[in-house]
Order: sequence, then C-alpha cells, then structure tokens
Amino acid sequence: VSKSYTLAELARIFGAACVGDGGTVIARVADLGSAESDCLAFLSNPDYLPLLATTRAAAVVLSQDHADTCPRPMLVRDNPYALYAKIALLLHPDKDLSLKPGIHSAAVVAASAVIDSTAIIAPLAVVEDNVRVGPRSYIGSGTVLKRGSVIGADCKLAPNVTVCDDCRLGNRVIVHPAAVIGADGFGFAAEDRQWIKIPQLGAVVIGDDVEIGAGVAIDRGTLKDTIIENGVKLDNQIHVAHNVRIGAHTAIAAQSGIAGSASIGNYCAIGGAAGILGHLQIPDGTRLNAFSQVTQSIDQAGSYASSGMPLEPVAQWRRNWVRVKQLDEMAKKIRALENKLAELEKNKTRRS
Amino acid sequence: VSKSYTLAELARIFGAACVGDGGTVIARVADLGSAESDCLAFLSNPDYLPLLATTRAAAVVLSQDHADTCPRPMLVRDNPYALYAKIALLLHPDKDLSLKPGIHSAAVVAASAVIDSTAIIAPLAVVEDNVRVGPRSYIGSGTVLKRGSVIGADCKLAPNVTVCDDCRLGNRVIVHPAAVIGADGFGFAAEDRQWIKIPQLGAVVIGDDVEIGAGVAIDRGTLKDTIIENGVKLDNQIHVAHNVRIGAHTAIAAQSGIAGSASIGNYCAIGGAAGILGHLQIPDGTRLNAFSQVTQSIDQAGSYASSGMPLEPVAQWRRNWVRVKQLDEMAKKIRALENKLAELEKNKTRRS
Amino acid sequence: VSKSYTLAELARIFGAACVGDGGTVIARVADLGSAESDCLAFLSNPDYLPLLATTRAAAVVLSQDHADTCPRPMLVRDNPYALYAKIALLLHPDKDLSLKPGIHSAAVVAASAVIDSTAIIAPLAVVEDNVRVGPRSYIGSGTVLKRGSVIGADCKLAPNVTVCDDCRLGNRVIVHPAAVIGADGFGFAAEDRQWIKIPQLGAVVIGDDVEIGAGVAIDRGTLKDTIIENGVKLDNQIHVAHNVRIGAHTAIAAQSGIAGSASIGNYCAIGGAAGILGHLQIPDGTRLNAFSQVTQSIDQAGSYASSGMPLEPVAQWRRNWVRVKQLDEMAKKIRALENKLAELEKNKTRRS
Repeated sequence: VSKSYTLAELARIFGAACVGDGGTVIARVADLGSAESDCLAFLSNPDYLPLLATTRAAAVVLSQDHADTCPRPMLVRDNPYALYAKIALLLHPDKDLSLKPGIHSAAVVAASAVIDSTAIIAPLAVVEDNVRVGPRSYIGSGTVLKRGSVIGADCKLAPNVTVCDDCRLGNRVIVHPAAVIGADGFGFAAEDRQWIKIPQLGAVVIGDDVEIGAGVAIDRGTLKDTIIENGVKLDNQIHVAHNVRIGAHTAIAAQSGIAGSASIGNYCAIGGAAGILGHLQIPDGTRLNAFSQVTQSIDQAGSYASSGMPLEPVAQWRRNWVRVKQLDEMAKKIRALENKLAELEKNKTRRS
Repeated sequence: VSKSYTLAELARIFGAACVGDGGTVIARVADLGSAESDCLAFLSNPDYLPLLATTRAAAVVLSQDHADTCPRPMLVRDNPYALYAKIALLLHPDKDLSLKPGIHSAAVVAASAVIDSTAIIAPLAVVEDNVRVGPRSYIGSGTVLKRGSVIGADCKLAPNVTVCDDCRLGNRVIVHPAAVIGADGFGFAAEDRQWIKIPQLGAVVIGDDVEIGAGVAIDRGTLKDTIIENGVKLDNQIHVAHNVRIGAHTAIAAQSGIAGSASIGNYCAIGGAAGILGHLQIPDGTRLNAFSQVTQSIDQAGSYASSGMPLEPVAQWRRNWVRVKQLDEMAKKIRALENKLAELEKNKTRRS
Repeated sequence: VSKSYTLAELARIFGAACVGDGGTVIARVADLGSAESDCLAFLSNPDYLPLLATTRAAAVVLSQDHADTCPRPMLVRDNPYALYAKIALLLHPDKDLSLKPGIHSAAVVAASAVIDSTAIIAPLAVVEDNVRVGPRSYIGSGTVLKRGSVIGADCKLAPNVTVCDDCRLGNRVIVHPAAVIGADGFGFAAEDRQWIKIPQLGAVVIGDDVEIGAGVAIDRGTLKDTIIENGVKLDNQIHVAHNVRIGAHTAIAAQSGIAGSASIGNYCAIGGAAGILGHLQIPDGTRLNAFSQVTQSIDQAGSYASSGMPLEPVAQWRRNWVRVKQLDEMAKKIRALENKLAELEKNKTRRS
C-alpha cells in the first residue's frame, strides 16, 4: 500500500504554500468532482472552478488566483498542474518498479548478461547475451532484450516489448507494451526488378526520461544510429524510421510517422496522425497540428497545420471534393475573367 | 473435428424455412464459387446471383427473393447473411475455446489469481496477482494479464496480448494478438520546459461481446476509466486514448485514432484511418467515411466525410495542391470580380 | 565474429571490376564519412562525391562514372548500391540465423510439430500442434506459431511475432517484432442492431523473400486466403485486411492500410500512410505517393498522388481550409461570372 502524507509535508517537499490545516492527511489524488476525504484534487482549468465549492477533497492544489474561492485546505503555487503531477507520482508510485528486486525463476537470462542486483526481471522475460540492465529497472513478462542491448537505471519496460541488438536506453525510460525498439529500417536496393536488403547496422540510442507508447516502432539506423534524445515523449503507435533524430523534450501524439533520416528539433509538439517525410528538417520549438503532412523542411519555428478537407455531410463533401480536381482550372478561369474584365474597363475608359 | 448438421436441423435451430432435401448434410461453409458437396453457401449480394445455377454447394442460404432461381436445397430467411454467420459460427467453433480446460504447466500464474476451472491458460501466458479469469475463457501464449485485471466468461485472448493493471473485460470478448489494453495515457504537465508525467490511475473497462483487433492500443484513464461498451467492434491498429468512451455496438475500421476524452455514441460506424480529436462528442448513429478527420463535435447524427484531395496523376495533383494554398485569395478575387461586374452592369443600366 | 574478405575475393564473388590493391582486407561496411581502414564504403548518390577525396575507407564501391575521382581501391560496377547491399549482407550475416541449431529447453514445442533439425527455436517461443518449421529458420523468443502454421526455409521470425492457425510463409521471409499474421478479418453481419461475427476461415499465404515490418497486421481471409506474393516488402505498422492480394515485389511504406479484398499488382511502390479502400484494383507497376487515398480502382499504371492540404502557418491554413467548404459555391460563381461577362461582351458586340 502507498504511503500517506500530510498537507504540510507535501508543501515542504515540493515548495508550495500550505493554506488551512497542515495536518490534513492525503492518501491519493482524484478530480474535484469525485474526490473523497483522503484525496488531493487540483484546479488548473478555470472551467472547473464551480466544483471548488462542493468538492469533498481533503485538499486542493491551485494557483493564487483561485485561492480565495477555495473552502478546503490547499497547496498554493504557480503551475498547480505540475505540482499536482509531482504529488500524484509520489502518492502513486509505479507498482512494477516497487516490486522486490531479482530475476524471476521463469525468466531466461543469458549468463553473459549483467543485471544490477536491484533490477527486477519478471517471469518469462528474455535477456540475451551481453545485455546490461541498470539499477532498479523493471523488465516485464514477455519482454525480450536482444544481445548487447543496454537498459539504464530506473527504467520500466512493460510486458511484450522488444529491444533489438545493441540498442541503448538511458535512465528513467518508460516503454509501453508491444513497442519495438531497433527493428530493421526499411532499406532496399533495386536490381533486376528485385529488392536486395540493405543490412541495418546502426542501433537505436534513447536518452533519459523518454516515454515510448504502446505499439511504437523505432527502427535501427542503417549505418549510424537512430537517436531519441532526452525527455522525448512518444504516444502510441508512432513509427520512427531509420536514421531519424528526435530532439530533446519533443512530444509526439499517437499514430504519427517520421520517415527515414528526418531530423526533428528540440521542444517540438507534434499532433496525432502527423506525417513527416524523409530527410526533412524541423526546427526547435515547431508545433504541428494533428493530421499535419510535412513534405518539405520547415525553415522557421512556428505553428503549422495541414489536414484533409473539412468534415461535412457526405453529399456536400463530395461536391467540394470533386471541385478540388478543378482547382487549377478554376484559378485559370479567374485569371481569364480578370483579364477580360480589365479589357472591358479599359475599352470603356477609352470610349468615355 | 467439427460436428455436421442436416439442413433440417439448421432450419430448426435458427428458425429458417428449409426448402428441398432436409436430410442434406452440412459440414462447413464456403462461397458459392468454391463450395463442395458438404458445404453450405450463401447469397446475399445479388451480384453473385449467376453463381446459383452452377454452384456445387450442398445447400444455399438466401432470401425469399432469390429462392425461385436456386436449384439446390436451401434455407430461406430474411437477412440471409446474418443466418449464414450464425451457422458458420456453429460449424466452425473457435479451436482455442474448444481446448481442454486447465492451466498449462509452462504458464506462470500467481497464487492469488482466481482462474475458473473451465478456463484455458496456454503455455507461457502470465497471470499476475489478484487476476480473475472467468469460465471457459482462453488466455493465449505470451499474453500477460497484469495485477488485478479481470477477464469475464467465454473470452478469447489471442497470443501476445497485454492487459494492464485492474482493467476489466466483460463476457465473450475477443482480443487479437499484440493488442494492448490499459497502457498509460499520454498525459504530461509542462514545467521549466520539461514534461512531468501525470500518473494514469484509471483503468479500461470493456463490456460484453467486444472484439479488439490486432495491435489495437486502448489507454487507461487518467483518473476515471476509459470505457468500451457492449458490442463494440474495433479493427486492427486503432488507437483509443485515455478517458475515451465508445458507445455500445459502434464499429470502427482499422487504423482510426480517437484522442483523449472523446465520447463516441452508440451504433456509430467509423471508416478506416479516421481521426477524432480530443474532447469531442459524436452522437449515436453517426457514420463517418474512411479518412474522416473530426475536428469539432458533431451535433446531429448523419453520414459525414472528409478526406484528403482526390487521387490524381502526380503532375495534376501537384497543380491543384498548389492552388489549395491560394484558395482564400481565389475566393477574394471572385468577390472582387462580382463587385466589378455588378458595377459595370449598374453603369450600363444607368447609361441605357 | 564475421569473416573478412579481400577486395579481389569480393570482386570475384559478385562480378565487379577490382581497381587498385586486390589484397585490401574488408571486414565491414560503413559510409564514406565514417569509414575506417577495414571498411568498404559506397558512392551511389552523387551528392556525396566530395567525400571520396577524404574517405579513410579501405575501398569504395562505385560506378564507372566516378572511378576516375576515387583515390582508394575500388569495386567498379553498374548499380553500385545493389553491389554494396550484397557485400554488406555477406559481411554482416544475421546473428540470429547464425546461432547454433536446435530447440531451446525453455521453448514450448508441441509433439506433433515438425521442426527441421537445422532450425533454431529460441527460448520461450511457442510452437503449437502440426506446425512445420523449415531448414535454418529462426523463431524468436515470445513468438507464437499457432496450430498448423508453416514456416519455410531460412526465415527469421523476430521476437513477439504471432502467426495464427494454418498460415503459411515461404522461404527467406523476415518478420519483425510484434507483427501479427493471420488474425481474424473484420467481418460482421448486422441483425437487430447487433453485430454477428463472420468466422474468418481462410488463412494468410506469404511467398518467398517477403519482409514484414514491426507491428504489421495481416488478417486471414474470410473464406479464401489473404495473399502476399514473392518479394513483397512491408514497412512497419501496415494493416492488410482480409482477402487482400499484394502482388510480387511490391513495396509499401509504413502505416499504410489496405482494406478488404483490395488487389494490389506486382512491382508497385506505395508511399507511407497511404490508404486503399476495399475491393479496389491497383495495376502492376503503380506508384503512389505518401498519404495517397485511393477511393476507386486505378485503370492504368502510373504515378499517382493525393494528400491533405499543404502545410502552412495555422492562420493561413485555416483560411484556406474554410474555403474548401465553399469550393462548389466558388465554382458556380465563376460559371455565373463567365456567363455574365459573355453576355456583356455579346451586347457590346451587338451595339458596336
């Protein structure tokens, strides 16, 4: 069971102002609407302000702006959502990372693998030759660490993850189920109308504090490595092709795809189902809307979007969809109309 | 081996009219073109009507409309496709669900797990603490049920599925390989240009008669649960983010993505590769074409579509694609032309 | 450790011209920029021509066009990239396929399975009843071969792959982690507002020299088989629905989706995130750009594209996006303007 804290303790640990009864005991977090008497809730989005009056939360995390209207004990700080996140992590530590260290008797671990004595290897995990697993890391059931792969400290690899040969993960990396790190990139040479495989000899190198969603596939590099820098967050089912670099602290939403050798800057935010073609450069701090299709490099940071056509009732969508095919023709007709009209006006002027 | 039935037995079981030799023995199903003498075929799409004359099927399922033209014994009923489906399920029961009950010696099952004596736990499945598996359910090899998860009766979990902590599946749920139920949602608070993880403390709750495709990822809720209601059918590689609700009997085709906290109604039909942004509401009975991008809530049920631009030869596509960037400008030019023309006409009228 | 070759040996094996010291020892491949003294590099893209002067590679593979400017020993041949690929495969053989043959004691293999004595079954692989695995094939950890499936010779199935009942793979097939071959297609009959499952009784049949990316899902056929012909290359996270046929030597980039019963010709090249609707026909040799949405059959081979709207700064994108909804109206306005203008001109002519 998780540990409880008093409000005063939390205030001290995280450097927030405690207002009201500092002895209030906090066991867990909840939202304002469903919080019970052992819960800490938070107010970040002002839309939920009305719930403050009626919440049964033991205490609330909020900013100074809303402190006056809160009838409950509270922790007051700028960016209450970040404070809430930190407290929630403290109150709800990962259960797998809290398991007793050791290698389960039903795991298969090569003699040459070096597993820190504080690491946790779950049943039916497979650890091949020359793998290293760092302190306090958890390797889930069904997860396979292939030869020479390296897992840092305090990592959590959920079940059914595959880490291929020689790929390296930093510290505090979280990998969700069915993710694949280091499968071969998609590279072929054509000859005689056949495809000849290009061996994919690079690896995947992942920094610290990276989170990788369920079903993500990050391909190994062809000759150099595919690079995922510190603090990158990848949502589910993202495809990262060979030789890609994703810069530090960039977050990418689900189902996006990054083609080979693209380079994404630091601190980018990329919406879901976005696609970035191969060899493109995306500068630091770029924001892309969901569904964006990036077909050329972006020169300047900013917020960009593309998308399909707007959603409409089918009949209306189809009418417009057909017109898209006539766009070039339409533009030429407008030009022709402008020319004719200009001529008419010129003649008129001449006549008058 | 599967059991055979006479046509008369099938007619009785499913309430259809048997026309022709009721003693005809049916061992399996096939399509009209390739059916052999122990096969039941079906006619639903009238395009295949010409095949009736030459089919070698033992019997055919069809509607009254086509009964006159059928030279073979038949089962006649409205909605012959549904009748065919039911007979096919009877003749071709799932082989995994028909295995001998019990826990394979090479499965790893926690002592605290409660496995019904009629359930089937395949080799190298992992069942963690406090899991419950209901009657006659099958848990495939490499599938991991994490602590506290609950599987109802008559479920089939194929190999290499992951069900995370405390997620709950109803009865008759089918989960295909590499699906992930209950991985963490994608939630972070930003502070000092870093991402702080928001613990994902809700679960995934799945109703009865749900089917979940290969590689689907359904994230657990942040504080409340992600909800998949009864009868929902999800095709392969769908992403369902945290706190989503998918209403009863909604079917979603492959590679669609539903962002966080979206709520999809009952009886919706959503085409492949559709995307629905976060927090949107989709009413009961909505139909979305493949490739639809839903960027705002839909007020009224109906059939909606969006899509990319129409497919064309590359050169023509590019010409139109460039024009899309000029659309706003084009609209303004049309307005200007209309104004000038109106003025010309006014002048003309004045002159005449 | 891998074997080394002299340049003269490589020239002889692959039929290239050796220029310079044929005794040069080659242990591995690298790119021109990072090659060291035991490396073979290659020049294919002329952009890298300047690197020839300074490369430290032991030797370079290139075409006759660039032989004059190369200061290093070299292998000269048309299509140097294909030659490089073949040499790279020789120098860097797959490590899993080079393991000692045999069934690991921690694999679970049914008594009725027929495993060639030269095959390699990794720990915690599962091989069910009546499976056959051919000579020298590797079945990775966590991979499950369900009943009756057949794996040819020299195949590599990476970890955590699932091959469902009765699916058949040819020779030299590579399957990357988390791929799913033969899960049920998405087929339901509607009755009383419920979905009734259509049993999926076909299999997946895969030819020789096919490569299947991480997380790919290829569904089994409904009554007939889903067919992947010889030499097909599928990148990561592709969805192939039931009854699809993909013709020989077709390559498809990541995250594309092929809906049910579509038939793709031979020698097609399909870009990433493309979508092809059900029952369509794509002729041999068709090329589709990334993001293409194919909504009707293509009559004639060629290069086709569709895509979303062009990427733009959000404000400008939104202005154009709104205009798309007015496209049909815009086209009608242009027509009206043309008519009015024609009338004006006619009147003018009459007056003059």
